[in-house]
Amino acid sequence: MHDFTFQNPVKIHFGHEKLALIGEELKKFGKRVLLTYGGGSIKRIGLYDRVVEEVKKAGMELYELPGIEPNPRIGSVRDGARLCKEHNIDVLLAVGGGSTIDCTKWIAAAACVDHDAWDFFDYEKWPPVNKALPIVSVLTLSATGSEMDSGGVISNPETNDKRGRLSPLLFPKVSFLDPTLTYTVSPYQTACGSADIFSHLMEEYFTTGEPMFMIDTFIEGMMRTIVRYAPIAMREPDNYEARANLMWASSWAINGLIGADKGQAWSCHPMEHELSAVYDITHGHGLAILSPRWLEFCMDDETMPRIARFGITVFGLDPTLPQRELALRAIDQLGHFLFDILGLKRTLPELDIDESHFDSMAAKAVLPYKGTIPGFRPLTKDDVVSIYRMCMK
Amino acid sequence: MHDFTFQNPVKIHFGHEKLALIGEELKKFGKRVLLTYGGGSIKRIGLYDRVVEEVKKAGMELYELPGIEPNPRIGSVRDGARLCKEHNIDVLLAVGGGSTIDCTKWIAAAACVDHDAWDFFDYEKWPPVNKALPIVSVLTLSATGSEMDSGGVISNPETNDKRGRLSPLLFPKVSFLDPTLTYTVSPYQTACGSADIFSHLMEEYFTTGEPMFMIDTFIEGMMRTIVRYAPIAMREPDNYEARANLMWASSWAINGLIGADKGQAWSCHPMEHELSAVYDITHGHGLAILSPRWLEFCMDDETMPRIARFGITVFGLDPTLPQRELALRAIDQLGHFLFDILGLKRTLPELDIDESHFDSMAAKAVLPYKGTIPGFRPLTKDDVVSIYRMCMK
Repeated sequence: MHDFTFQNPVKIHFGHEKLALIGEELKKFGKRVLLTYGGGSIKRIGLYDRVVEEVKKAGMELYELPGIEPNPRIGSVRDGARLCKEHNIDVLLAVGGGSTIDCTKWIAAAACVDHDAWDFFDYEKWPPVNKALPIVSVLTLSATGSEMDSGGVISNPETNDKRGRLSPLLFPKVSFLDPTLTYTVSPYQTACGSADIFSHLMEEYFTTGEPMFMIDTFIEGMMRTIVRYAPIAMREPDNYEARANLMWASSWAINGLIGADKGQAWSCHPMEHELSAVYDITHGHGLAILSPRWLEFCMDDETMPRIARFGITVFGLDPTLPQRELALRAIDQLGHFLFDILGLKRTLPELDIDESHFDSMAAKAVLPYKGTIPGFRPLTKDDVVSIYRMCMK
Repeated sequence: MHDFTFQNPVKIHFGHEKLALIGEELKKFGKRVLLTYGGGSIKRIGLYDRVVEEVKKAGMELYELPGIEPNPRIGSVRDGARLCKEHNIDVLLAVGGGSTIDCTKWIAAAACVDHDAWDFFDYEKWPPVNKALPIVSVLTLSATGSEMDSGGVISNPETNDKRGRLSPLLFPKVSFLDPTLTYTVSPYQTACGSADIFSHLMEEYFTTGEPMFMIDTFIEGMMRTIVRYAPIAMREPDNYEARANLMWASSWAINGLIGADKGQAWSCHPMEHELSAVYDITHGHGLAILSPRWLEFCMDDETMPRIARFGITVFGLDPTLPQRELALRAIDQLGHFLFDILGLKRTLPELDIDESHFDSMAAKAVLPYKGTIPGFRPLTKDDVVSIYRMCMK
């Protein structure tokens, strides 16, 4: 249990009648708003019209940056920053999932500097984030937790880099969490989003340190929440209870609380970022494929008790079983949940990924950690290649 | 599940090496600090000297308000507000438990108005809280959660009133949670503080609405945390793990998260406030005596499933038992925990309380609710008297 500092200032409006407050919240930050969004889905569900109406009612000037990609790219950050400077934007309104919000965070920072936006992610340069425009978000996908955290991940297709960075200035000021806005999320995207949330929980849960018991109960509770509600949301897309639980879990899985007392790097995320940087796959799907293999790779006498406990508290395994059997069954149950129940593909070849880039991807995954990711088990470049290989079948 | 707005901006420095940051945090708010505290315990444990040293190192001017009472009184609020005005105080530093922090919050508000401090609690007047001095707190008792919430309860011994009120301006800016500062808390006060935390959890958990599953898992996890660690902290006062878990649970039991999706009044707190207003007993002890009787009083076909679930998830009762038996055993287990394990007195007479004021106390308890407390079960004045009577033996 490490000393820590925790602060999360994001104001959350949660529920199906809260969007009426968008204009009121935006107005607090000025007159000129840049609306950022991805593809056409927010138009199809009528959310675009609703948001524009609220912004107009508030008497604000509206500018737009559409077309933010899944795995958002540095080009969109540059475009957004240029628009902010040109139109003297006061506040950003991100409407979408984690990709749109992540991209908008770095637009908010890039709009306040003269250097190129990618410099923020260049390990050699790493300029400070001293200022950022305020951000309001409207969430449409329960997955990344970007609505309540201070980080964003950006891809650079020229270099095949996908990098994340945090800054306390990048917390959204206000986020709107309306579970009904996720009713149209497909079963596949619901599965991927749920796998992403589950992975955030696993990254913090699987630690060799001495975590705080109370926080363990929160993590295990959120894991049970995903196991319970993801399949319901896939079957009954307009089940409010299921969508609401997934949405609130997406925020609390990665808003600083559950990882505060840990001092450990994440493992599956750096490995997955290289996959989606090269192959542009859905982040949550990559995480799902990696997670059970990573746990299997990590299993030894030291890690076994924690994996066994995961099986008991999350999947309800019989605590009287021998520990090794519990741990093995826990990994089985995890795979069963991700691949059989959520229906995600089990192997990389099923996503058209072969071994050709494993070596360079593994090298990049360990690069920020000077060669070894200090996670649940320390992972060298060769270890990462081994885990990628385990995902081939 | 109701729509809600959640925001908690308090910055928490948690751990045993964080006090060194006090000066740095205070300086952000100005030069003149009023240190508020209770009896001599912070001097006995060396905390007073430590805090004064940090304030001096930061080059700040120090003023003091000692002697804040348990069940803090409006007189102390008035004294503090006067000191703030006289010395043009920039920031308040509350060092102590919930009583000191509660009192300091209302000093912070009263320092910014011309009217009498009790007006804030006068149902006829109820002036707005438009401004408050910034507050930094150093917690020495895990109980009320005042370190991370926006409320404070103040007693008026002239009228035997004890009243609480919230305002978003009364969140501490920064709270220091150092579990080692609670090593000297006596087993009895540890028991009372733990009963207070447990009661906060029960007040939100026992709802007839449809609560959010994920939040239920958090509440149950914190309940298990108290059941697990309160006895350890009583037996081994310097057990860091136990003290840390109790401390972080005290904050999360009442910082706005677990009650956000509910729309229901608390029950035991209004009943207890009348007890401690008249008899000046320790708040957590009063809550402990009331809680099992209140649950027993509330039990009917509608509330039974929730009480049964509490027994399964918190006390590990066998889920295959009939529901009525589960619920009855859950209430038994609660009493066993509070009275046998924590060693608190089981009845009001053991605290020298007789029936003489039951009628007037019950009338006051339901007064803010126009006659009926809309809780787990609606409670009229007669119901409150019945529950008080159940606590006689």
